Amino acid sequence: MRGRMNDVKSYVPPFALDAPMEGGAIGEVVESRADGLKAGDKVLHMAGWRDEAVLPASAVTVLPNLGVDPQAFLGNLGLTGGTAYFGLLDVAQAKEGDIVFVSAAGGAVGSAVVQIAKAKRMTVIGSARGAEKCDFVRSLGADAAIDYTAGPIAKSLAAAAPTGIDVYFDNVGGDHLDAALAVARRDARFAICGMIDAYNGGQPSALRYIMRVISARIRIQGFIFTDFMARMPEFYAEMAPWIASGQVKSRDTIVEGLERMPEAFLGLFEGANTGKMLVKL
Amino acid sequence: MRGRMNDVKSYVPPFALDAPMEGGAIGEVVESRADGLKAGDKVLHMAGWRDEAVLPASAVTVLPNLGVDPQAFLGNLGLTGGTAYFGLLDVAQAKEGDIVFVSAAGGAVGSAVVQIAKAKRMTVIGSARGAEKCDFVRSLGADAAIDYTAGPIAKSLAAAAPTGIDVYFDNVGGDHLDAALAVARRDARFAICGMIDAYNGGQPSALRYIMRVISARIRIQGFIFTDFMARMPEFYAEMAPWIASGQVKSRDTIVEGLERMPEAFLGLFEGANTGKMLVKL
Repeated sequence: MRGRMNDVKSYVPPFALDAPMEGGAIGEVVESRADGLKAGDKVLHMAGWRDEAVLPASAVTVLPNLGVDPQAFLGNLGLTGGTAYFGLLDVAQAKEGDIVFVSAAGGAVGSAVVQIAKAKRMTVIGSARGAEKCDFVRSLGADAAIDYTAGPIAKSLAAAAPTGIDVYFDNVGGDHLDAALAVARRDARFAICGMIDAYNGGQPSALRYIMRVISARIRIQGFIFTDFMARMPEFYAEMAPWIASGQVKSRDTIVEGLERMPEAFLGLFEGANTGKMLVKL
Repeated sequence: MRGRMNDVKSYVPPFALDAPMEGGAIGEVVESRADGLKAGDKVLHMAGWRDEAVLPASAVTVLPNLGVDPQAFLGNLGLTGGTAYFGLLDVAQAKEGDIVFVSAAGGAVGSAVVQIAKAKRMTVIGSARGAEKCDFVRSLGADAAIDYTAGPIAKSLAAAAPTGIDVYFDNVGGDHLDAALAVARRDARFAICGMIDAYNGGQPSALRYIMRVISARIRIQGFIFTDFMARMPEFYAEMAPWIASGQVKSRDTIVEGLERMPEAFLGLFEGANTGKMLVKL
């Protein structure tokens, strides 16, 4: 969403001025003349920051009955969980026994990565901002949590991963990416999902260890969740039972009221959220 | 070889002080008691910077009879040609119709990349230092050659590739890598082979466009030629006929005399070579 506030060519068009912000939301059908869609149905849609919307039936998806809270479809069973799942298992080809480093591990995507990696018997190191979030990351099952405000991430990561890492799930970019390059093992895979460091700063990333892609044969791969939309059934089949059984948990940050949307949004860039940042109308 | 002069952990151990420099060489057998190896045989070995060596038979490879000049085994049919071949076709998965950008296209690896890409009906843009080398790059069949001393590479590359690039074969790193990130098309593949910019400078690479790995789903993959040693027959089978027929040419830079080795080596970092830098004893 932050990317779409820049007037540049990207994988989706920029937001238009004076138009409602688009974004994933769960709504309740109030009125419908469409087949298979009746008042009271809970639906997923992209109409975003608004109280009400009139939408064609093709623009909404009735939530499948997977035995989980509807809210999960905005989090661990939605875009963020799917990003974690396909990024970790498909893009980064992480497998049992791998040592995985994930940045912003207290965030929505990161906390899902930690839990999926543990469900798949990997060793997981997460970075987060501050001691409290690090506690949360450990509570999700991470083998180690790094408070990146406590010192240079390169030093902390080298200490937490003395034998190196096989996989890096990047939500941050910048010095986190550089630290991961420095400790990557032979044939390491990096899934690049977000670079929140770069969204607002505009500072070029200084990568002192980029040359290690050669000696360690590192593969760096960018990806977008929507590339994997056709594979949602596979994701639901594995993730929904984990959520239903409590093996994968969420601790969403919920802000109440449409008028607090901007506050909630800006908070994402200051680490104000633990887990998914949600706004309840 | 430059990398092995740094006392750091890498994919091969650093050079030892006061020991002969190792490196690929072609020699003639003077005396042998080994089966299948007789005086007069031309062999490939790694004993490097010296007039003579006593080696076990297992440390030399008799040049296969492929109808090409022995010198080719140090260039287009050796490490440099193999690096170009596997880097372009395997690591970067370049295919007919792709738009390929290769940096240091007047160098040993780069000039092989240009010619292999043209043999496979790709569009090729090469960068090189100075007008004369750019003429050479064009003479190899490149569709465009960029003199990177004439202006910012990002601007020149954007002009030479107005619709973007599918593949980047990186011999340089730094601003060349950043320029390639800026113009990469969806699902572009980068094969990272060398970063000569970084070998001596030690400056961190400032990558302003690294975030494009996400929106364009770029894959960046480092590699080393030796990973592909088991596949030499496949390489010989395609490359030797190209060399024999003149479709793939070389214009080696030959320096005469063992005592001029250091001069030849240092020249590599100043662009003193066109094609492979060879020293004749």
